[in-house]
Amino acid sequence: MSDRSLLSIDDLDVAGIREIVELSDAFEEVLRRPIPKVPALRGRTVANVFFEDSTRTRLSFEIAAKRLSADTVNFTASGSSLSKGESLFDTIRTLHAMGVDAFVVRHRAPGAARRVDGWVDTPVINAGDGAHEHPTQALLDLVTVHRRRGDVEGLRCVMVGDIEHSRVARSTIGAFTMMGMHVSVAAPATLLPTGIDDWPVDVVEDLDTALEKADVVYMLRMQKERIARDPVLPSLREYVARYGLTAERARRLPPEVVLMHPGPMNRGVEIAPEATEHPGAAIEEQVRNGVTVRMAVLYLALGGMP
Amino acid sequence: MSDRSLLSIDDLDVAGIREIVELSDAFEEVLRRPIPKVPALRGRTVANVFFEDSTRTRLSFEIAAKRLSADTVNFTASGSSLSKGESLFDTIRTLHAMGVDAFVVRHRAPGAARRVDGWVDTPVINAGDGAHEHPTQALLDLVTVHRRRGDVEGLRCVMVGDIEHSRVARSTIGAFTMMGMHVSVAAPATLLPTGIDDWPVDVVEDLDTALEKADVVYMLRMQKERIARDPVLPSLREYVARYGLTAERARRLPPEVVLMHPGPMNRGVEIAPEATEHPGAAIEEQVRNGVTVRMAVLYLALGGMP
Amino acid sequence: MSDRSLLSIDDLDVAGIREIVELSDAFEEVLRRPIPKVPALRGRTVANVFFEDSTRTRLSFEIAAKRLSADTVNFTASGSSLSKGESLFDTIRTLHAMGVDAFVVRHRAPGAARRVDGWVDTPVINAGDGAHEHPTQALLDLVTVHRRRGDVEGLRCVMVGDIEHSRVARSTIGAFTMMGMHVSVAAPATLLPTGIDDWPVDVVEDLDTALEKADVVYMLRMQKERIARDPVLPSLREYVARYGLTAERARRLPPEVVLMHPGPMNRGVEIAPEATEHPGAAIEEQVRNGVTVRMAVLYLALGGMP
Repeated sequence: MSDRSLLSIDDLDVAGIREIVELSDAFEEVLRRPIPKVPALRGRTVANVFFEDSTRTRLSFEIAAKRLSADTVNFTASGSSLSKGESLFDTIRTLHAMGVDAFVVRHRAPGAARRVDGWVDTPVINAGDGAHEHPTQALLDLVTVHRRRGDVEGLRCVMVGDIEHSRVARSTIGAFTMMGMHVSVAAPATLLPTGIDDWPVDVVEDLDTALEKADVVYMLRMQKERIARDPVLPSLREYVARYGLTAERARRLPPEVVLMHPGPMNRGVEIAPEATEHPGAAIEEQVRNGVTVRMAVLYLALGGMP
Repeated sequence: MSDRSLLSIDDLDVAGIREIVELSDAFEEVLRRPIPKVPALRGRTVANVFFEDSTRTRLSFEIAAKRLSADTVNFTASGSSLSKGESLFDTIRTLHAMGVDAFVVRHRAPGAARRVDGWVDTPVINAGDGAHEHPTQALLDLVTVHRRRGDVEGLRCVMVGDIEHSRVARSTIGAFTMMGMHVSVAAPATLLPTGIDDWPVDVVEDLDTALEKADVVYMLRMQKERIARDPVLPSLREYVARYGLTAERARRLPPEVVLMHPGPMNRGVEIAPEATEHPGAAIEEQVRNGVTVRMAVLYLALGGMP
Repeated sequence: MSDRSLLSIDDLDVAGIREIVELSDAFEEVLRRPIPKVPALRGRTVANVFFEDSTRTRLSFEIAAKRLSADTVNFTASGSSLSKGESLFDTIRTLHAMGVDAFVVRHRAPGAARRVDGWVDTPVINAGDGAHEHPTQALLDLVTVHRRRGDVEGLRCVMVGDIEHSRVARSTIGAFTMMGMHVSVAAPATLLPTGIDDWPVDVVEDLDTALEKADVVYMLRMQKERIARDPVLPSLREYVARYGLTAERARRLPPEVVLMHPGPMNRGVEIAPEATEHPGAAIEEQVRNGVTVRMAVLYLALGGMP
């Protein structure tokens, strides 16, 4: 167990989040240099241990590590070995014995990263554990709002879509509300988690009314398959009509809105292609900020101090 | 779109090709040093985006990038995601947002690299798009002839085999003829592209007559499966008899001939094992030159100037 | 063929093994530095060519290479291409032509690494060829006993389990006996190789008697599937009772015993979970020493001299 691990956004307090945001800003400056690289983590080895496919998140951590001059090794496992807890244990202990200095862990089981953290004395970064948590996503979302709008306190965010199955929802709502933002969620009843009443959010019925007051619009990925499978969910067409960020809805948003999506997008489902062209669209900035945030998290985890 | 991209051999003129050949020679000298590495691209990130398996080409680019001290990340996708144009778009835009400085793209769809080039302002190198183009192959082929024979102008090349399905044929013929070589092709009628009359080549009927006057013999890979499948093609045995570089044909070639193959070879089909032992065989030199040519292409793409 | 290759533990003599053990100790000191990295192999390229899955061994070599500042490239092939000797040949020759400086080869065919060594003039390290040899495993096992117990001469090792199908058994027994250790093996008759009488080992009938005198206890991995399949083998329960390192057997071992396993363990089969907590358990030390031993082997192979 390491007190430098990042397993949940709740591991951080306001000061801790501020530190990461500031460090992320400092690394943004590094990325604009002719040689966008610092020797901060030279000789350190970061292992990306991915028990679930996520090329996008893995590459973001890998690039972040390289920008800090760390060495990286990748361990990716097929779904079949997921069920054996023992195998995960032995994999981690083996990599630890090889001298890995930090673990970036993605696993479909909620709580997996925390279990890994109990097995080693080196820092563990949770890169997504089932529908549970994804703290670096929350941090990059926060940095994105911060870079667009300055002080985030008091800003109103509407988050739309599949709250129930989204680790992004859980972590990002945690980060946004901790920093003083107000969050509303809009979703069909079957895509709201059962305990939603205990979350620090308002549930809104009508998306259009909510959008009128929104500073930040956060669209979640909606899997077409889920719509087709769920007998209670409305049809895809009805879903888009009620919860999609259609071209028409996007046109009504003011230019200073911050329009976000964790990717990958289902264009034409939760978000219309035209909406991604809105001046407020910050979806690629989220990706860019993902690199600097992960640089900050790795830097702090491996013992650097800003 | 970047004017440093290399999408087709036709993007280059004679001066541009000469520049790459010379730079490739300079890097050949680097590779003979005790530490065969230069810091030219330190801090640059090259993404190998391969939507089609080609370990050989990917490793050649990866080694070239490392020799220039660039960082590399690999994105490989299975065939299943190929059909979704949108997915390719989002993959590229995401990597671009992560700060990738150059894309090396392999895709089975003709024109894929050019589409990618339209989506980003960073250079794109075409590492093969279907049966269409493979410009770095053309350049390494040219460098190979040049290193063996000096000035290539006026040299006569016979290219043999499956012209129709070969991106190598298209690109290499372009480079050879642009630099003043004469190219003849020998192939069964069904393996000649329909528009062959507009290509700057002669079609020859009899391989043996053509070989008598050849300075360069270029054997293309012939897939056994294609022979078995195609009712019009002669049997494998007949194919080898008419178009294979058999041991006997190889014996009749003079030592100064340059004998080439893009690899991987089907030994015993288009080329006999004995033929690869001919003093003119330059097949491994092609592989070696592939590294220096890709160093040159990456160096120029990423803003270095010789 | 290179005289710096390591294909079999028999390629080394006592002096050669001592050199690797000492160099491994020196690298252990490097790993304890703040930046655990030396520039010894800067600019060298090591190819991990794995025709059989072994993430654990591949990562150990990859980390070892990076600690020496070498570049690494990975070539992994599915089982399907294993049968074609020609394909292996062309793969190796192609990588060789690309300028790879050393090959780390894993292949399921006994003798594969030696064949590869015949095709190139660069060093080849055997990372496991079928049930035949795994020399770096033998060296890390030896280093592990050495670090725990000092001079290994005269120490008594009991090796338990599937001797027949284990390359670890073959190589480690070779290294242990060459350095003056006594080795006994305990296994069901069907898991002893036919030529066992010619091996420099004693075959013991009763594990418990053998354990009483053991300085080193080496448990081999026992595949459950093999037990289920083999009509002659006792049931899993009987196997564990006779040949497993149960919690009870582990309790009777003195603290200074060295308890080893090549990994990955089948907990509850050849080794009880409690046994891995014994003070003599050196299983993770084996993994750690694997990195320093491979650093030593790569360093010597690539021309460094201690």
